[in-house]
Amino acid sequence: MLHVALVGYGYWGPNLARNLFTLPDCKLSACCDLDLKKLDEVSALYPGVRTTTDLDSVLGDASIEAVVIATPARSHFALAQKALAAGKHVMVEKPIAMSSAEAEALIALADERRRVLMVGHTFEYNPAVLKIKALIDEGALGDIFYLYSTRVNLGRVQHDLNALWSIAPHDISIMNFLLNAMPLEVSARGARCLGTGVEDVVFADLTYPAGVIAHVHVSWLDPSKVRKMTIVGSKKMIIYDDIDPEGKVRVYDKGAVRVNSHFGYGEFQYKLRTGDIFIPKIDMTEPLRLECAHFVECALQGKPARTDGWNGLRVVRVLEAAGRSLARNGAPEPVMAVTPGA
Amino acid sequence: MLHVALVGYGYWGPNLARNLFTLPDCKLSACCDLDLKKLDEVSALYPGVRTTTDLDSVLGDASIEAVVIATPARSHFALAQKALAAGKHVMVEKPIAMSSAEAEALIALADERRRVLMVGHTFEYNPAVLKIKALIDEGALGDIFYLYSTRVNLGRVQHDLNALWSIAPHDISIMNFLLNAMPLEVSARGARCLGTGVEDVVFADLTYPAGVIAHVHVSWLDPSKVRKMTIVGSKKMIIYDDIDPEGKVRVYDKGAVRVNSHFGYGEFQYKLRTGDIFIPKIDMTEPLRLECAHFVECALQGKPARTDGWNGLRVVRVLEAAGRSLARNGAPEPVMAVTPGA
Amino acid sequence: MLHVALVGYGYWGPNLARNLFTLPDCKLSACCDLDLKKLDEVSALYPGVRTTTDLDSVLGDASIEAVVIATPARSHFALAQKALAAGKHVMVEKPIAMSSAEAEALIALADERRRVLMVGHTFEYNPAVLKIKALIDEGALGDIFYLYSTRVNLGRVQHDLNALWSIAPHDISIMNFLLNAMPLEVSARGARCLGTGVEDVVFADLTYPAGVIAHVHVSWLDPSKVRKMTIVGSKKMIIYDDIDPEGKVRVYDKGAVRVNSHFGYGEFQYKLRTGDIFIPKIDMTEPLRLECAHFVECALQGKPARTDGWNGLRVVRVLEAAGRSLARNGAPEPVMAVTPGA
Amino acid sequence: MLHVALVGYGYWGPNLARNLFTLPDCKLSACCDLDLKKLDEVSALYPGVRTTTDLDSVLGDASIEAVVIATPARSHFALAQKALAAGKHVMVEKPIAMSSAEAEALIALADERRRVLMVGHTFEYNPAVLKIKALIDEGALGDIFYLYSTRVNLGRVQHDLNALWSIAPHDISIMNFLLNAMPLEVSARGARCLGTGVEDVVFADLTYPAGVIAHVHVSWLDPSKVRKMTIVGSKKMIIYDDIDPEGKVRVYDKGAVRVNSHFGYGEFQYKLRTGDIFIPKIDMTEPLRLECAHFVECALQGKPARTDGWNGLRVVRVLEAAGRSLARNGAPEPVMAVTPGA
Repeated sequence: MLHVALVGYGYWGPNLARNLFTLPDCKLSACCDLDLKKLDEVSALYPGVRTTTDLDSVLGDASIEAVVIATPARSHFALAQKALAAGKHVMVEKPIAMSSAEAEALIALADERRRVLMVGHTFEYNPAVLKIKALIDEGALGDIFYLYSTRVNLGRVQHDLNALWSIAPHDISIMNFLLNAMPLEVSARGARCLGTGVEDVVFADLTYPAGVIAHVHVSWLDPSKVRKMTIVGSKKMIIYDDIDPEGKVRVYDKGAVRVNSHFGYGEFQYKLRTGDIFIPKIDMTEPLRLECAHFVECALQGKPARTDGWNGLRVVRVLEAAGRSLARNGAPEPVMAVTPGA
Repeated sequence: MLHVALVGYGYWGPNLARNLFTLPDCKLSACCDLDLKKLDEVSALYPGVRTTTDLDSVLGDASIEAVVIATPARSHFALAQKALAAGKHVMVEKPIAMSSAEAEALIALADERRRVLMVGHTFEYNPAVLKIKALIDEGALGDIFYLYSTRVNLGRVQHDLNALWSIAPHDISIMNFLLNAMPLEVSARGARCLGTGVEDVVFADLTYPAGVIAHVHVSWLDPSKVRKMTIVGSKKMIIYDDIDPEGKVRVYDKGAVRVNSHFGYGEFQYKLRTGDIFIPKIDMTEPLRLECAHFVECALQGKPARTDGWNGLRVVRVLEAAGRSLARNGAPEPVMAVTPGA
Repeated sequence: MLHVALVGYGYWGPNLARNLFTLPDCKLSACCDLDLKKLDEVSALYPGVRTTTDLDSVLGDASIEAVVIATPARSHFALAQKALAAGKHVMVEKPIAMSSAEAEALIALADERRRVLMVGHTFEYNPAVLKIKALIDEGALGDIFYLYSTRVNLGRVQHDLNALWSIAPHDISIMNFLLNAMPLEVSARGARCLGTGVEDVVFADLTYPAGVIAHVHVSWLDPSKVRKMTIVGSKKMIIYDDIDPEGKVRVYDKGAVRVNSHFGYGEFQYKLRTGDIFIPKIDMTEPLRLECAHFVECALQGKPARTDGWNGLRVVRVLEAAGRSLARNGAPEPVMAVTPGA
Repeated sequence: MLHVALVGYGYWGPNLARNLFTLPDCKLSACCDLDLKKLDEVSALYPGVRTTTDLDSVLGDASIEAVVIATPARSHFALAQKALAAGKHVMVEKPIAMSSAEAEALIALADERRRVLMVGHTFEYNPAVLKIKALIDEGALGDIFYLYSTRVNLGRVQHDLNALWSIAPHDISIMNFLLNAMPLEVSARGARCLGTGVEDVVFADLTYPAGVIAHVHVSWLDPSKVRKMTIVGSKKMIIYDDIDPEGKVRVYDKGAVRVNSHFGYGEFQYKLRTGDIFIPKIDMTEPLRLECAHFVECALQGKPARTDGWNGLRVVRVLEAAGRSLARNGAPEPVMAVTPGA
């Protein structure tokens, strides 16, 4: 049984609490937030969970072994650092930190204290993404040509974090995972439509090894809610639509086949090929539940999380490069490689 | 009655023939193609239309007043030049030419010969686009924040023309038209997936005046057929889906409204606003028919076409800048301004 | 403040509990179910709510003023009768009872005891249905020609209640409400596919006054989840799709207009008319919450509920007639009229 | 080479002409219509096809071996009879005739003259329907539980033929084909909304052998265009949507599985089962082309058509029974069996 404290009960915290409260092998012992009204909500829904505005009292409680951090992104680093320093296992929401230096410091600290450091890249626990990963790894798609992702809606406008840092960690985390690689170079452009000083919409291009290109479009100022990624391979293509009620993953047996030209000039032609469409059944377990269960398991067994600090760092490196590109009007920026253990 | 010859009966030519054959005030007198089988098709479908592989015989025929060119893009300039030089009014498919120098030469020649030069930017005759233009012009959308377009399918793979030059003229023409402006700067990235030496997929960013950003995604290697543009304004938002059977244009009364923060710190917050959705009835006349009718009218009355040579040049300038950016890995490239009459 | 007991915490009870627990002016005092595991769930989620398997102890508790019944349909009558007899206000899930005699007995008892008797026809509190009702009442649709409803999915298979009694009360309640009338005649056919002895799928036809016909299709054995009603009027048509994420109500400015025939024979022709489509914004408040709030308000103020016993009886009368028709292989059966106060 | 005359160039005739004109082994020799403007259209599109208003001159032309009849339904019998009597092979649009007596007379006449009599039940040539038929026949769906069809739009209002006779022959023909049977009993209800004296909307129930029930909904007064049939089997379920651009046939691996109740009372429970969805590639050849080719082949080789007179008669028998039920307010009516050769 892992005794866990939840820090932050704002936008995402309620979803974490709901899962941490009901998971086997996990006991939600305490919840910490600066807003007393939020703590009242916690008390009403989860009797027996200690609520407090005093983080130190939580970190000083030796019975609490793990901390889950779901506060605004800019506080992730300081809180995670404090929790690790206090000897707690830490799961922190994405992005793991606001800079790679911070992420590296957390990795080093977790390593030193021999504690689990995990980042909440929830889509890497999503059964739909795992199904796509399996299809790619077994070669069903052939060579991956390119992929692109759209994650937009009329949603939560942020003031101190642009749409890239707020939304795109999901897309980058999925793409890194599916391709088992980091992009080498990124460019990004965006617009500050609402005058808040941060980009409300961002279009970013990622160049992965072997010439695979990826594109990410994020926005909180869009008429539609879209959560969609397309992956084009040489043999098959996939559309992953996370909100399609009929099925999240569609596998298209489609492509262009090179044939000898009928002109016989040694030229090639491409014949389009359209075959069956397959919508595999996807396990409907809530990805966040699977993510929380993984954290509990790793903390209890002392094994590294799938989305560990290095994983979090890789996403931050891409965000940093994209941020530099944004500032340079879209000029391509290299992404610094991440070498775990280095 | 305008006597017209159609040059090129390949991919798009049959659609032009069908309209030119049946339009009032227009007589499809001749059709020219190098492929005898194509000409047989013409003869079977359009009795009385002269078919020939000899362009000079068409251009030398004084009874023919106008020529419509629907040949591969790389031949547009040479054929349009020849036709103008022979004193014909010319409508040429998009892109008007493969370089701005060529486009300028055509403009100058048409001007000198006092002939109509029109480019087939068919979406500028599309009633859905005209409806959106009217809504923007009357201020219904408020300030335009940004717009983006996706035009992809598993479609005709080309070998000597990338997806940008092949498909994106539509998107650029629509965007220039809606915003009544040209982009100042463009960047573009793409992938040559099929090994043909040209990009099968391109993502391009266009920066219009007043900080309006636009994004274009084109591909002929995609599992879905998508023909969609989203326009986000400060007051309303529009999704234009050219293949939605229920209605091509959806006007969303949605946005983010600045309100004073309840914290009272002189801070702002944004409240999301979601209202009615409106799907205006759109005239179903085939846009190509309206385009052809406009050409006939301009040629008969000696007035300039809405999508004249300058309009064509503006699109080519954007394509050229995008091509330079593609070659420079996505680095932003300035778009040379177009000053008609200069 | 109304003190309420919830009886039945099975399929629907949890939704009622969630609302009753959080509504202002309402206190969920007790929850009664025969399944101890269910009661444990209640205790975990709603601390302070008394749980018991002993209904009599609830009904004997003078501090409890109202009872909400969400047990299997066949027990509705007996439980509601007991609760009314004990002097409680009663809200009972649909159908109010399994026969009109039972429904009438409940009405009489509530009347005698001067207590509120309300049936949970939740769609009559659904803002989408209220919007459609308003449009009909203001004449926007013109004369109603016909309407039809499909409510199917692969869902809860029942053994002692056919799909008609289980699902169709919703459709009948909506139709009665929209048309402000009861059908005069019903016919119904169904199939017992699974061998349970009850119909898994039913198609029913309802004849309302003034020749308005209605059709209802319900099934728990269908590949799609559909919750859709179409209303065809002489001026406009509406599609109400309760699970369309873009908008539940679509108003189509469509119809057939009688014109004089161009043959001049005194004959008529019909020209089809297709205009704009309008998707009004619908209040997103959970209908069940509005329903519960209405019950609380009626109980506190001693006023009759909108979906009172007579309303429940009207639906039961239709179900009874449909059941007779099912037994007679679809032969039309008259629906006995309901005259409140008679 | 079969020499064919087309009789009737109104609503459907142009589609027939287009196919008959271009099919191999078929020569469209003549076209007959009473409307001279229609004949002008034919001449313009199909040079070399003789046009005439005089049917007798066509039937008297010995070089013409076959006649395709696409006139208003009420004239089908008289024209087909005349053509058969003149020794022509006959393909007649659906319904084959307006009564079973007429249909039987045509069958007898075709038999006597040893000519092909074929009815244009075009969906029996539709590759999507053939795919579904193959899946059913190979047992993929298990036992067929029930099926239902919706064929509605805002479409051609008719004055002398109700929606049942006008539209439902398609649904009945498909259902008879898929189930390899005729319904034993039919009931139908409809509404005459527009005051033309015929039903604009009809809901019909068909009882096939082995308790398989079917439902048909047809209307020309509906806000949506729907062409959809659902087939529910014990093992799998199919949705056939003829206008879904992504794929017309969806095979759902869904169902309800009987399991022993955990209560152990010898009771059964049903567990819902949801698996993969499969969208098989369907040949995109135009069904009407396949139908016309079949007629040509049968006429040339003297073999009976798949949709022969008996097939046409079976549909008429169902329509007749449905008509009687309509007149009796939905009371179920037996369908007289059809015994070929009797």
